[in-house]
Amino acid sequence: MDADVAVRDGRLSIRWGDGHRSIFHAVWLRDHCPCPACRHPATGQRLLETAGIPDDLRLASARLAGAVVEAVWSDGHVTALDPAWLRHHCYCDADRATHRPRRRFWRAEGRPGLPEAQHRDIVADADALREWLAAIDVYGFAVLRGVPGVPGEVTRVVELFGYVRETNYGRLFDVRSVVNPNNLAYTGLGLSCHTDNPYRDPTPTLQLLHCLSSSAEGGDSVVVDGFEVAERLRATAAGKFDLLARVPVAFRFADETADLRSERPVVTLDVGGEVAAVHLNNRSKAPLRIEADLVEPWYAAYRTFTRMLEDPAYQLRFKLAPGDLFIVDNLRVLHGRSAFSGAGQRHLQGCYADMDGLRSTLAVLERSRADVIGHLFERMRRYGTGAYLGEPVSITAHMLQAAHVAERDGAPPALIAAALFHDVAYVVHQPNDDPALDDRHPEVGARYLATHFVPAVSEPVRLHVAAKRYLCAVEPGYRSALSPASVRTLAVQGGPHGEAEAREFEASPFARDAVRLRRYDDAAKVAGAATPDLDHYRPLLEGLLIDRSAP
Amino acid sequence: MDADVAVRDGRLSIRWGDGHRSIFHAVWLRDHCPCPACRHPATGQRLLETAGIPDDLRLASARLAGAVVEAVWSDGHVTALDPAWLRHHCYCDADRATHRPRRRFWRAEGRPGLPEAQHRDIVADADALREWLAAIDVYGFAVLRGVPGVPGEVTRVVELFGYVRETNYGRLFDVRSVVNPNNLAYTGLGLSCHTDNPYRDPTPTLQLLHCLSSSAEGGDSVVVDGFEVAERLRATAAGKFDLLARVPVAFRFADETADLRSERPVVTLDVGGEVAAVHLNNRSKAPLRIEADLVEPWYAAYRTFTRMLEDPAYQLRFKLAPGDLFIVDNLRVLHGRSAFSGAGQRHLQGCYADMDGLRSTLAVLERSRADVIGHLFERMRRYGTGAYLGEPVSITAHMLQAAHVAERDGAPPALIAAALFHDVAYVVHQPNDDPALDDRHPEVGARYLATHFVPAVSEPVRLHVAAKRYLCAVEPGYRSALSPASVRTLAVQGGPHGEAEAREFEASPFARDAVRLRRYDDAAKVAGAATPDLDHYRPLLEGLLIDRSAP
Repeated sequence: MDADVAVRDGRLSIRWGDGHRSIFHAVWLRDHCPCPACRHPATGQRLLETAGIPDDLRLASARLAGAVVEAVWSDGHVTALDPAWLRHHCYCDADRATHRPRRRFWRAEGRPGLPEAQHRDIVADADALREWLAAIDVYGFAVLRGVPGVPGEVTRVVELFGYVRETNYGRLFDVRSVVNPNNLAYTGLGLSCHTDNPYRDPTPTLQLLHCLSSSAEGGDSVVVDGFEVAERLRATAAGKFDLLARVPVAFRFADETADLRSERPVVTLDVGGEVAAVHLNNRSKAPLRIEADLVEPWYAAYRTFTRMLEDPAYQLRFKLAPGDLFIVDNLRVLHGRSAFSGAGQRHLQGCYADMDGLRSTLAVLERSRADVIGHLFERMRRYGTGAYLGEPVSITAHMLQAAHVAERDGAPPALIAAALFHDVAYVVHQPNDDPALDDRHPEVGARYLATHFVPAVSEPVRLHVAAKRYLCAVEPGYRSALSPASVRTLAVQGGPHGEAEAREFEASPFARDAVRLRRYDDAAKVAGAATPDLDHYRPLLEGLLIDRSAP
Repeated sequence: MDADVAVRDGRLSIRWGDGHRSIFHAVWLRDHCPCPACRHPATGQRLLETAGIPDDLRLASARLAGAVVEAVWSDGHVTALDPAWLRHHCYCDADRATHRPRRRFWRAEGRPGLPEAQHRDIVADADALREWLAAIDVYGFAVLRGVPGVPGEVTRVVELFGYVRETNYGRLFDVRSVVNPNNLAYTGLGLSCHTDNPYRDPTPTLQLLHCLSSSAEGGDSVVVDGFEVAERLRATAAGKFDLLARVPVAFRFADETADLRSERPVVTLDVGGEVAAVHLNNRSKAPLRIEADLVEPWYAAYRTFTRMLEDPAYQLRFKLAPGDLFIVDNLRVLHGRSAFSGAGQRHLQGCYADMDGLRSTLAVLERSRADVIGHLFERMRRYGTGAYLGEPVSITAHMLQAAHVAERDGAPPALIAAALFHDVAYVVHQPNDDPALDDRHPEVGARYLATHFVPAVSEPVRLHVAAKRYLCAVEPGYRSALSPASVRTLAVQGGPHGEAEAREFEASPFARDAVRLRRYDDAAKVAGAATPDLDHYRPLLEGLLIDRSAP
């Protein structure tokens, strides 16, 4: 690695080959010395006591010595560091901004379906398991189909990625609802959206429910992204959001053998002010004991928030059939159930687990998989060679052409990647000749990309059909230049934007990228055009992967 | 219950028989309607959807109707509430101030010993189990002696009160340290104080370690109350405290099968600004990725805090022998181990569990026990009738006399209770003829009382011997009026205060109460004096119990 290494103002200063400058403070650098005296070679754990670093220690000199950056300290200690490690851990403002969690907020509107997998796949295939776990991490919930209808199976699903959290309800619990339409009080309960067990400390961070039998009508399951709704509340009623974030609420559950209580705000913020948890369960909310002046404002905020949670715009609904299982991030996604009607039985089994086990398994799978880029290239080569919706090129040739056009246009790396993958739905979704995919492919593709790549890759893909509808509405002549196949699909896709739709589209942060992507897409339907091979894009793509496993 | 009930400004206003006034807002009151339509009779869980309360609902009228407070709503709904429930849930400023957690911060200085119990007792006796669990809740750690030396026994101890938290280390893990004094790097590790697994989310809230064998010299266990040290940091260096509370730190653990990381500040504050958790583990601290300007100040704060944690003034040290087990609140109390020396083996088994199970079991035991006051009276009657350190009265007669003197002096209820229990160590500690108890009895008694009663009861008891030493120093003639027995014990207790000790004593918030208690103590050594019976004090004592199980 080419780098200019020096001590400046007592700090390590490095100018990298690409012009980027990194500054490392002396105490930070000393704290991360990887020598065997400072860090245990086998476990990688720190032996150096940070408290024991002398207050007057100075960085005496630093240089690039062969393949390492070598720092010499005023007490004679020598620290040798891998330049790539240093570059990765640069904490300048620009580099810090690239480290973001990969979760994506969602609402029901515009979602084409559920993040889901088949039980037989995640049991047999590490890639399928990884993708299912990543979906839970990103969206806060997922569905699993084809789970064996055996009591206790729900705990075996947990054992695929983590550990059951045993509670006073046992390792698992049965949810049997005898539907009795004569009992209005019961059918009328309205199992409004809630998180489970807010009276516990710590709250279980994952809940699973496995449907063993269901012959009742109705009883749809509902999930809501509590973080999306909380952010919406913050955007529209900051004062109410603030009250929910700073007023502690007691939750309580008591029976003969347990007496659980915990106190926390409905919305928990992390130290950066981001929403870190939602705890909400109207059934177990205990009497508020807060300043009298806050009682009415708090209730107003609580009722606004709970009413928003019941808004169908946010609520994703689905019906659990026998063999279905759903899992929620219980600090984020609220779940509920619509009322029953008719006669019948419904038997679910549930259990709790924790996010740390899930994220650890996910990180190990991501660390050990061959690599996502190779995996994707393989699928593009294998599945993307068929005809593409009546265009004169295959899907993969079309995407390679789009990337090539983007590259020649001087597009930034993420937009080149978006062009290369904009129709990736047709190679990652099976069956790929599903007619519904024509309408859903931007969403399906973006969801897949979002679990691996930064938003600047996935979001233009999500919007690239919307961009076509937008351009048809606002740009004279655009529509008449479309390929015949593209004109045909326009109708299925909703036709040109109306004025309000166009304004809404323009407001989205990736609208301009999506419009650029759209033009590359339109220009990439030339039979036999020469393009670079997929491997040409590998270095560019590696820089756009979401970084999860780096220390 | 005598009460004056009315609707004022749309709220329920109650003036109670004792003159106290409570105001309940309409929405709060409606939310807590206990009728079978609003709250499930069997489970006590709320059926009423708070979001569904009409915005324009008004409280039409309210009255005392026989034994209930009856509120009638503008939509015709009627809410009937138990006045005692309302009185208990009054949220006026004064009543809110009485609801405090019972945890007590501590440091090593002045502590007479460890909160501990015998395994055979907690297995056989619900009272002993309850007291041991209460100690963990109050002090954040406790020791258990006489645990069978059987592998896996540590998980059976958890099963007495809760549930094992299984992790990638298993349901339990072995800590075997082969002592090898030739390996300086290893013996020199210095297992500095830490919390376990800060890289997990959620962090396990309880850790247990059970000693199966120990033939090594050294290897003392160390525990530190992280909350006490954090508060000390806040008091002495608010800027450093603030940095530790707002800068997120990443922690990471990775091996072949796990890759765990979590990000949180070293000090977590709750919404009220109270310290809610400490996460600190220098070995698994990952590279900081924070604003460059904060790096040096954060390191300075971190090093100040970690150096304070190593200060012997805060560190309680003890040596685990085979059959000993210790348990820590892993969000509060840090633990470590001093270096080994000599040759030998040391084998511990550990496991994780969570606070919610512990607190639930504790609440159930407290709910179901006959009652703490009856229990204490029984012990006073059974064990307190022997001679008392050469005084002409029994211990129980002496305490009854002290309470009677306090009562005639017009002392507040808590001080009367303190007088009644000031030598309670001699009836709750076994054996009560332990000579070391003469010196330790204020601390032992106060610790017992603190788990059941408000601080205004326990703290004067803690200081009542210090008050004697103080009065000997500052009040001419006080010493010469002491009983011969009291003069004898003065020497063991440290003699009269020096000037600095006296100033320090005066600074403690309960010093004046302790001095008053001391005078009641001195006046309560009259052979055959008539006093009320213990039962006379029951109503007064009931008002001073820490309230835990009320909803």
